[in-house]
Amino acid sequence: MIIKGFSLSAVAAGIKYQDRLDLGLVYSSTPAVAAGVFTTNQVKAAPVLLSIDRLKQGRCQALLVNSGNANACTGKEGMEAALHTSRLVAEALAIPEDMVLVSSTGVIGLPLNVAAFEKNMDSLVVNLSEDHFAQVAEAIMTTDTVPKTVARTLAVGGREVKFLGMAKGSGMIMPHMATMLAFILTDAQISFPELSSALKAAVETTFNRITVDGDTSTNDMVLVLANGAADNPWIEDDQHPDYALFRDCLEEICKELALKIVEDGEGATKLITIRVCGAKEDHAAEKMARTVANSSLVKTAFFGEDANWGRILGAMGRSGIRFNPDRVDIAFGDVVIVKNGVAQGCEAEKKATQVLKKNQFTVCIDLQDGTGCEEVYTCDLSIDYVKINADYRS
Amino acid sequence: MIIKGFSLSAVAAGIKYQDRLDLGLVYSSTPAVAAGVFTTNQVKAAPVLLSIDRLKQGRCQALLVNSGNANACTGKEGMEAALHTSRLVAEALAIPEDMVLVSSTGVIGLPLNVAAFEKNMDSLVVNLSEDHFAQVAEAIMTTDTVPKTVARTLAVGGREVKFLGMAKGSGMIMPHMATMLAFILTDAQISFPELSSALKAAVETTFNRITVDGDTSTNDMVLVLANGAADNPWIEDDQHPDYALFRDCLEEICKELALKIVEDGEGATKLITIRVCGAKEDHAAEKMARTVANSSLVKTAFFGEDANWGRILGAMGRSGIRFNPDRVDIAFGDVVIVKNGVAQGCEAEKKATQVLKKNQFTVCIDLQDGTGCEEVYTCDLSIDYVKINADYRS
Repeated sequence: MIIKGFSLSAVAAGIKYQDRLDLGLVYSSTPAVAAGVFTTNQVKAAPVLLSIDRLKQGRCQALLVNSGNANACTGKEGMEAALHTSRLVAEALAIPEDMVLVSSTGVIGLPLNVAAFEKNMDSLVVNLSEDHFAQVAEAIMTTDTVPKTVARTLAVGGREVKFLGMAKGSGMIMPHMATMLAFILTDAQISFPELSSALKAAVETTFNRITVDGDTSTNDMVLVLANGAADNPWIEDDQHPDYALFRDCLEEICKELALKIVEDGEGATKLITIRVCGAKEDHAAEKMARTVANSSLVKTAFFGEDANWGRILGAMGRSGIRFNPDRVDIAFGDVVIVKNGVAQGCEAEKKATQVLKKNQFTVCIDLQDGTGCEEVYTCDLSIDYVKINADYRS
Repeated sequence: MIIKGFSLSAVAAGIKYQDRLDLGLVYSSTPAVAAGVFTTNQVKAAPVLLSIDRLKQGRCQALLVNSGNANACTGKEGMEAALHTSRLVAEALAIPEDMVLVSSTGVIGLPLNVAAFEKNMDSLVVNLSEDHFAQVAEAIMTTDTVPKTVARTLAVGGREVKFLGMAKGSGMIMPHMATMLAFILTDAQISFPELSSALKAAVETTFNRITVDGDTSTNDMVLVLANGAADNPWIEDDQHPDYALFRDCLEEICKELALKIVEDGEGATKLITIRVCGAKEDHAAEKMARTVANSSLVKTAFFGEDANWGRILGAMGRSGIRFNPDRVDIAFGDVVIVKNGVAQGCEAEKKATQVLKKNQFTVCIDLQDGTGCEEVYTCDLSIDYVKINADYRS
């Protein structure tokens, strides 16, 4: 699928590795309405700081992305490098500098190889094409094993609105940290306040509900660019049904990308949904689900295909959420293994073990204490996770 | 070392495995002053609930401990089993039931094998001896690779006061969860309020500062029994210098046992101290140190002997503690690798890597923002950790 007005390009710039797409450009022929959500980590990489600042105007016309170097923890030189690379883009495209966003992932603490950007800017611009979405999705990969893209169309006010989304997941390039990036392009006509609130709502229930290892990155960033080429009636009222349509579609796209990230989490062999129901309030359900989803003991048991409800109960017990252990039900898929706090015996455990052999399953926890219900998405903790992250020298 | 008035015994009762010490008894010939600290997990095993209740009187004369079964998450039958086994002890020793404490570790969710306790109670009592401390320390082991004991003496008011401490660490027996237990015996004469406050203070800076995987257990328990046989002047005033002496010695013992637990953590190859200094307040330093100490990314890097300060900075950034990244110093041992937020280059990284090859080292984080300083003790996250906890079927 292509979206009129957006052209893209990627090259192998040799930022860290040779012969691997690592530099990408997204260009909108008209200024797009743009909104973003950024890492909550206090340590923010230079491209994050720069993009946060520039997005205050709610517009953007170009996005430069690279893998191989996160341009994080590099002091003043990091910001100078981010500014310099964005200036290269602005000059090559003849657009204002503040209409360029930048995003980086990869090694942290090393100076950005600015020369690689300088050398490749011309060919990046020359290669811009509506067809190159997949190349850019590849250029942002680090140790992701597959590129992650989603395409959708949506009827809005009699017009067809298109969406293309890409994401990269938790991959490490020695020496350093995971970054989650996602970029969504659409030709919808939508005002900045509505675009921004739709994105924030979508991220909250999707990207903010996944976890690979509980660590956040200095470079996390989700951006949405809406260039208006679909010519649908402007979405400029969050009470209008078109806004709800748009928001729900954006949420679906974010969720699909988010699940792809977990599924391809470092060393992951399984995608697990932790659903907590029957809590007093939604946020209590979320906090408990998150604690279970981040427990190393629970995640290693998933890897071992061990229906280890005791570890789940243990993690619930340290979540800070009050509950009555004697009312807890726990099910793996549709197999109830604990009912009112009591184990359901060997037969149930055997059936639950069959559920754990699947690549995807849900753990349902019911506290029987209210209507609060939330889901968090996680993966297992495998030997490969340790190997990847220990830079295992074998 | 023996302590007059305390006799101990252990047998292989076959609670889970055969021919392995798994049931222990500690008997004080006179009622001992006793204090305890218990798991903060909301899900508490039956022996924890029973011991908390009985310790309200501040006295105890016998302690029954077993491995192989945690007697947790077993409903009403669990409490009945705990009461029943304590009654067996009371009858065999002819002491009141409420003078018996119980403690269990091992499988959760399975009914306690009460018959094994019944069958072995007589031989447990017959074998009681002042010399059998080491046997009981062995009987509480699960996947610990070594028993963990500490012996100390202390001069108090012209008398020699003795201490013997034992602990077990994070070990799993399929299918379930880690338990940390520690029992300390002393012949000091000390009143309950002083014993209790000394223990709470000691636990706070020792057992509560270690982490293997951030999970807490349903069965954690630290007990101290003081039988007064040393005949030192009663410690019954927390302003008296003898109290400070006693408290400091108890803290040292707890710290030594706590570090032994981390050192023998599941799959652990390294014992690492995370020290955060220069924080606005102590509790901020502690919270940040704990976040770093629990980060899977940091811990896998330790395993890989990778001086990965970027992951440390990343974990600091999500700790919830405010700091200025541009003022942060990070050192591995005495090698400063980050100064005022900036990496110190390849030479420093090489030297830091040498520090990481050691079995024990300290990571010093200086926020340069105050006088708050705390330490947390952790281990690395290894391939063996995953194997042990995944019940790896190879």
